[in-house]
Amino acid sequence: MTEHLVVFQPSGNRGNIQEGKTIMEAARELGVGIQSICGGHQACGKCKIKIQDYHAYYESNKKGKKRISAPTEKEIELLGEDAIANGYRLACATQVLGDLTIDVPPETQVNQEVITKTATQKAVTIKPAVKKLYLEVPQPRLGASQGDWERVSEELKKRFGLADLSVDHGALATLPKALRDGNWKVTVTLFMEKKVIKVESGLAEAAFGVALDIGTTTLAGYLCDLTTGETVASEARSNPQISYGEDVISRITHTVHSKKGLKELRSCLFESLNKLLKDLSSGANITRKDIIDATIVGNTAMHHIFLNLDPRHLGSSPFTPVLQSPMDMNARDFGLEICPGANVHILPVEAGFVGADNVAVVIAEEPFKQDEMMLVIDVGTNGELVLGNREKLISASCATGPAFEGAHIKFGMRAARGAIESIKIDPKSYDVRFKVVGENRWNDQDPQVKATGICGSGIIDATAELLRAGIINPRGAFNKNISNPRMLYNEKETEFVIAWVDETDVGHDITVCQNDIRSMQLGKGALLTGANLLMRQMGVDSVDKVVLAGSFGLHIDKQNALDMGLFPYVDPEVVYSTGNAAGEGARLALLNTDKRQEAADIARRIEYIELSLEPDFQKEFVQALIFPTPQEVKSR
Amino acid sequence: MTEHLVVFQPSGNRGNIQEGKTIMEAARELGVGIQSICGGHQACGKCKIKIQDYHAYYESNKKGKKRISAPTEKEIELLGEDAIANGYRLACATQVLGDLTIDVPPETQVNQEVITKTATQKAVTIKPAVKKLYLEVPQPRLGASQGDWERVSEELKKRFGLADLSVDHGALATLPKALRDGNWKVTVTLFMEKKVIKVESGLAEAAFGVALDIGTTTLAGYLCDLTTGETVASEARSNPQISYGEDVISRITHTVHSKKGLKELRSCLFESLNKLLKDLSSGANITRKDIIDATIVGNTAMHHIFLNLDPRHLGSSPFTPVLQSPMDMNARDFGLEICPGANVHILPVEAGFVGADNVAVVIAEEPFKQDEMMLVIDVGTNGELVLGNREKLISASCATGPAFEGAHIKFGMRAARGAIESIKIDPKSYDVRFKVVGENRWNDQDPQVKATGICGSGIIDATAELLRAGIINPRGAFNKNISNPRMLYNEKETEFVIAWVDETDVGHDITVCQNDIRSMQLGKGALLTGANLLMRQMGVDSVDKVVLAGSFGLHIDKQNALDMGLFPYVDPEVVYSTGNAAGEGARLALLNTDKRQEAADIARRIEYIELSLEPDFQKEFVQALIFPTPQEVKSR
Repeated sequence: MTEHLVVFQPSGNRGNIQEGKTIMEAARELGVGIQSICGGHQACGKCKIKIQDYHAYYESNKKGKKRISAPTEKEIELLGEDAIANGYRLACATQVLGDLTIDVPPETQVNQEVITKTATQKAVTIKPAVKKLYLEVPQPRLGASQGDWERVSEELKKRFGLADLSVDHGALATLPKALRDGNWKVTVTLFMEKKVIKVESGLAEAAFGVALDIGTTTLAGYLCDLTTGETVASEARSNPQISYGEDVISRITHTVHSKKGLKELRSCLFESLNKLLKDLSSGANITRKDIIDATIVGNTAMHHIFLNLDPRHLGSSPFTPVLQSPMDMNARDFGLEICPGANVHILPVEAGFVGADNVAVVIAEEPFKQDEMMLVIDVGTNGELVLGNREKLISASCATGPAFEGAHIKFGMRAARGAIESIKIDPKSYDVRFKVVGENRWNDQDPQVKATGICGSGIIDATAELLRAGIINPRGAFNKNISNPRMLYNEKETEFVIAWVDETDVGHDITVCQNDIRSMQLGKGALLTGANLLMRQMGVDSVDKVVLAGSFGLHIDKQNALDMGLFPYVDPEVVYSTGNAAGEGARLALLNTDKRQEAADIARRIEYIELSLEPDFQKEFVQALIFPTPQEVKSR
Repeated sequence: MTEHLVVFQPSGNRGNIQEGKTIMEAARELGVGIQSICGGHQACGKCKIKIQDYHAYYESNKKGKKRISAPTEKEIELLGEDAIANGYRLACATQVLGDLTIDVPPETQVNQEVITKTATQKAVTIKPAVKKLYLEVPQPRLGASQGDWERVSEELKKRFGLADLSVDHGALATLPKALRDGNWKVTVTLFMEKKVIKVESGLAEAAFGVALDIGTTTLAGYLCDLTTGETVASEARSNPQISYGEDVISRITHTVHSKKGLKELRSCLFESLNKLLKDLSSGANITRKDIIDATIVGNTAMHHIFLNLDPRHLGSSPFTPVLQSPMDMNARDFGLEICPGANVHILPVEAGFVGADNVAVVIAEEPFKQDEMMLVIDVGTNGELVLGNREKLISASCATGPAFEGAHIKFGMRAARGAIESIKIDPKSYDVRFKVVGENRWNDQDPQVKATGICGSGIIDATAELLRAGIINPRGAFNKNISNPRMLYNEKETEFVIAWVDETDVGHDITVCQNDIRSMQLGKGALLTGANLLMRQMGVDSVDKVVLAGSFGLHIDKQNALDMGLFPYVDPEVVYSTGNAAGEGARLALLNTDKRQEAADIARRIEYIELSLEPDFQKEFVQALIFPTPQEVKSR
């Protein structure tokens, strides 16, 4: 039995291969992952490889000293004469007849690394939960009693070594027509190498998945090509549950007070999610049924509502979730209008107030793979903190209130067009310069968009600038000795004018009032207390890196956040904003099942600290309410 | 560490057990199966055992020489003082303090044998797919982040060694309320030691399952107590699909011709099945939701329609089923209104015309466990044959036509009230005596019920008697030389009067006509050809045992069937009628999961013979159309 030395590059795997075996077989023997969806039928062209020094081999082949088999008709059809002349061949078609060195191009490698596409998207190895396999199934014949499914599953075993597969009943129902329409050629979609979830006629390579981030305020969806890892469409829209209450507590309360409450919250959510899926699909020129995998993240309340689990016990001590573990289920069971047999993977939650969205943030930021002590701050209506490194991870939830989102602020609003997002106050004249969302120019540069309110980053700027100018003191009280047109001393409370009426679109001055400062104090006090107690628990005095997750972090001025003492002081250089890290975590889990396992492990591993049970919680909180003094800020 | 010798009876398992361990623990160590649903909480009382020579032990115990621990309060409450004085104790509560011999009563043994209850019910070892487990779950506490499900699943692991369990999403949704309503005590229903499918508050022992036999004509249901194996209710009703056609071919045709055909057939079937389930449940004083497991059998067309699989390819060559393997799915997925998370197990089919009903017959009759060569004949609208023994099994389908069910016979009818079921013809006077369904007296004994038609067993009697009297010859032709008032020579065909008009309720004579005899010939020819070809394939000249499955077999006169040559000749003593063996197979598979595995193995193992492809099929068939001659019959 003649053998030849075969070497694969770039992996360097090498070994002796029996003459006559295909390069695909050689790759399998030597543990080299080569893409193929047709399983060696010379039908998909995915297993394209390049023979080194092909010209010499090809010529030697022509002259009779064969090192490789001649190109087949199908190879020529799929690759073209030119590519073949340049040494490209199909691994499944080319036989080893002599010693060979083979380059496996990146697109042919299994588990390829995808390069970061945008500032907030991370590189990820493509290892999706679903896989498409092309099959040529033997026709049934009289006297053979095998069913359609049995012939398909036998072919899957023979061709791909897959045994003990199950089949989704909906996919099974489409099988007989798909087989006959495709003239006994079909593409099956396999979930986790265990279950056939879809059957299509002929060769159907396209594979899409969706990552959904169900936020209290915003629903975000990312449609990804599961073969390239590319995000082909993304969409966001308001969570329609807002009509049942702005925060999770009011929505939980609705499920308690109304018998149909949970059903109402679910049905408006799913209606909106399904519309979002429709928009995503049309954006990518596919239909919703082409989406064959999904991952879901959300805070614990959204997680429960999505899963049709009663959220009432999340709303009162001891804040127990029904389910903490990840959950896999069929899209059809939950009315998510993608491929009905598709799996929907819901990431695990950590604890009552630390949800699957936070787990997603953690698997996106990966503190557990770092030596540096990282503090991840995810601020929405509620604040979630994770502190740790590869040694240990601890988390906490803190009731920041919605001030950082611009809610419960006199002129607060979301970061929508017209929201004041940046503010500068002259420490002497108290003159104010500001910029609004949707406008590049400052207010003194004749902007086109007028102000309509103040958003989260604006109110942080305002707080920091008011502190710097000494207009408020570290205890948050206005300095009532200042006499300036911008200082309004009303009967009820003191206000500071940010935008004069003619700079606004709302018919009156836009101000920051004493109550707004109190809301900021409560929010920052809660966040800082949480961070301080986590650090104490971890036994550290400082952190190496702060990650601000969520869109909140994308817009705020880091220096201002530090100067108002929003979180423990670090060099501004090590404060990072990651945008929608929860959505990013969902996307990573969609593209790579290892990230799902990682999420499950992390959710169990993170030690959750109930802050209110910590000794000195109250004392710490009172302390944390105080803003840094100008002296403190200067001495940093 | 002191150890004591513990012996369990009747198994005889013995070994040294560490002092202080419970008898339950000793049983586990020594491999003795003891019932328990509460997992050692002294709550269910299922683990009742008897201590041999208890009196001596008990006394010695009282005097201080302890061999067993004293009864606990809960034991006294559950067993009563009297039982304890007689040596009964709970295995989970009683500690080993000295050498002991313990009797495990039958009801405490795991996998107990159930005694045959009726003539047609077989003994079976109880080993259902579902199991109920009682749990006392730790309460949630502030600062611990575990969810309700995680605490339940941890308890299942700790108490029963069950790891990696999944949970039905519907069961999960009921979990928080069940836990709190039951004060953290719940009973979970576990499917195949893998998945929690139901949760109930407190201790809930009752466990019911249903076996459904979906016949072309009749739907039959058997409600069984899964703890005792007892059939607590059984019901039958007409298959409402009859309005779409009497036989499977016309129903398959309906699905081809009408777009909504399959949907219509399914929805009327499920409506009727759900009503049947309701009747079964009220018959046993339970609700449908209390049914936590189900098995389904039916011919291939019924199997496909039940599973929402397109049956069209069953109707034309090569008669390929969509699915041959067994299928497990959730009741909720198919609208079967039992416990929504319950598993529904559909038995496998063998081939295009040999369905799950036939597999069920085979696992009920078990030819594969016997040395004798057994021929199983299942006659309905279609005939299915299985021939074999422990060495080999072969099957065939033969187109008997519906004559044996009384259809396509001039005065044919089902075996309903008024149907002539037994016939005797005087070979000299040609006088006829007959008996109808619903009447104990013959027609000459002044019966109350008048005749309305002839059913399958009646037409077989008529054929055999007409042959005996020489009124028809072995080729099936009427002897036109006979002059008798009962012989009617019409223009179109010859008839023989069975019942005179005044003996009937239909206003005219009831006759057997030439066409009826031809239908019988075609039916018996098909059946006999099938049996002969199977025997040839098997290489045998005769069989040791004939089993007639189905209600058809229950009513026919064996001698008459043999004399008209319905199947190969055997001693009438070895012809058995089993009633609804398909339903019985479904019941056995419900009560014992080993039978499900057996069915899956058998369905793959049985060699299916396509009769029309056999050489000499046509020749054999023509031969088989001929009835045995009186000489042949006499010489047997």
